[in-house]
Amino acid sequence: MRILGLDPGMATTGFGVIDAVDGEVTLVRYGIITTPAGEMIEKRLLSIYQQANALIAEFCPERAAVEQLFFGRNITTAIAVGQARGVLLLALASAGIPVSEYSPPKIKEAVTGYGKAEKAQIQLMVRHLLGLDETPRPDDAADALAIAITHARFASFQEAVDVS
Amino acid sequence: MRILGLDPGMATTGFGVIDAVDGEVTLVRYGIITTPAGEMIEKRLLSIYQQANALIAEFCPERAAVEQLFFGRNITTAIAVGQARGVLLLALASAGIPVSEYSPPKIKEAVTGYGKAEKAQIQLMVRHLLGLDETPRPDDAADALAIAITHARFASFQEAVDVS
Repeated sequence: MRILGLDPGMATTGFGVIDAVDGEVTLVRYGIITTPAGEMIEKRLLSIYQQANALIAEFCPERAAVEQLFFGRNITTAIAVGQARGVLLLALASAGIPVSEYSPPKIKEAVTGYGKAEKAQIQLMVRHLLGLDETPRPDDAADALAIAITHARFASFQEAVDVS
Repeated sequence: MRILGLDPGMATTGFGVIDAVDGEVTLVRYGIITTPAGEMIEKRLLSIYQQANALIAEFCPERAAVEQLFFGRNITTAIAVGQARGVLLLALASAGIPVSEYSPPKIKEAVTGYGKAEKAQIQLMVRHLLGLDETPRPDDAADALAIAITHARFASFQEAVDVS
């Protein structure tokens, strides 16, 4: 199963594409979608949407996963992140790709086994699980991979439950 | 100039279409875009996007206006509103329609002449300015008309400045 993980943002959206087979995960690609700060908001959203559609067309993910909630940010940031998140979810829905949402503690638990893990621990585990020589950069891309890995773990658990 | 005002929301998005000629405004249509609460979030965003595209195709607005910021709401609401706002702005950008944003005090001032006006005063002035027999319902539609009227006032002021 090919999974696209997304960490939405107006300036920088992290993405991570992985393949998950029998609980094992392998890296396909990671990176970021960026938009220039000086551009009009609707132009930036259009750019995010077009870049997301290009990613979907190139990697043909079967499932997608995003972070569920954004704690401790202010209202202005929440609206900006929400707008970017909206067009990303729209791109996925338009392509008929089911989306799962995971809370930050769920992601931490799925990747490190500990719901209150630090960012550095998560990044180390992402690197380890995918067998990479270096930690994925920037952080948004590493976070997106963590979200994709989280879906792989929950999906394989769900499949095991379905079989039993 | 035909103006589309939008008051974005995940469950209910108000819209108001007006024509503005020489500072005079006339009603074209108002109403709401709704999505069912039980539906998956990405499906709801797709529905908002499709309904917005249908509105744009039917009324061919030349300009659009939305509220700039959402004060006093919680983070979860801000993300939900942001997501709906994102796909609405995307629909406008895809159609090449320029978008202006106005803060709530600006909208109040443009419609009533007073930046701290109550909701009832704004609705009364919307009804008066458009020569309607009844106050537009629901509130989201009346708010969207107020936003469209705000743009008409600022645009005609801007034109006067450009000419001088």
